[in-house]
Amino acid sequence: METQQNTSLFPKGDKLSNDYFTGNAFLHPLQAKDKNNEFALGSVTFEPGARTVWHTHPKGQVLIVTEGEGFYQEKGKPAQHLKKGDIVNIPEDIEHWHGASAKSKFVHIAITNYEGEKNVTWLQPVTEDEYNKVNK
Amino acid sequence: METQQNTSLFPKGDKLSNDYFTGNAFLHPLQAKDKNNEFALGSVTFEPGARTVWHTHPKGQVLIVTEGEGFYQEKGKPAQHLKKGDIVNIPEDIEHWHGASAKSKFVHIAITNYEGEKNVTWLQPVTEDEYNKVNK
Repeated sequence: METQQNTSLFPKGDKLSNDYFTGNAFLHPLQAKDKNNEFALGSVTFEPGARTVWHTHPKGQVLIVTEGEGFYQEKGKPAQHLKKGDIVNIPEDIEHWHGASAKSKFVHIAITNYEGEKNVTWLQPVTEDEYNKVNK
Repeated sequence: METQQNTSLFPKGDKLSNDYFTGNAFLHPLQAKDKNNEFALGSVTFEPGARTVWHTHPKGQVLIVTEGEGFYQEKGKPAQHLKKGDIVNIPEDIEHWHGASAKSKFVHIAITNYEGEKNVTWLQPVTEDEYNKVNK
């Protein structure tokens, strides 16, 4: 029997730009930065194979994985495999990417801290070669 | 067939003190305040009937409902019914409570902002009369 628990926590939201995301990734915003909350809060859904480009956050970001399987990788380090219930505390100014595995959808909540008005610097895409290596 | 999607996102964690919570409520900590994250992050599970005492946050709190049904009520206002996927942006210094409905479990992630070293002031319990009114 299908129960409410089988549905995703949030809607997929709107497709994110392929300038910053390879493949099909979507953002459902949950809470904007305001006078109390010095972060943006949103749910990001990656279709299989979709991922961010390499990027940095000036004041870090926390990921809460809510569905599926994917990866988090810092430049020059092995990728971490991520699944539902995992938390990643991404440090400031560390070049990294995250996204779905080649065969699974991947959904995470992101808490993205601001330093002033800035919370991300986008860099170059994760190449097919870089991506295929972590999916081996 | 039971699938992974049917399980809760996080473990229940440890029982919270009845000084601050009526009934059985549990905390599974996810991320402590650190140099980047000016909040505590955790998953709170309320058994049916369980709720916080009245309290305030000096810099507000964001709730992300991940399972079940419950309530959020500010002093002197009608209670808001909450279900999976709902977000509450709780203002600073507003007396309020949250918790399960009488008949349902309730689980939320809490992002509790700090003002200096403080993130909550606990007040008096929600009385049976106050609680029964919102469950009518």
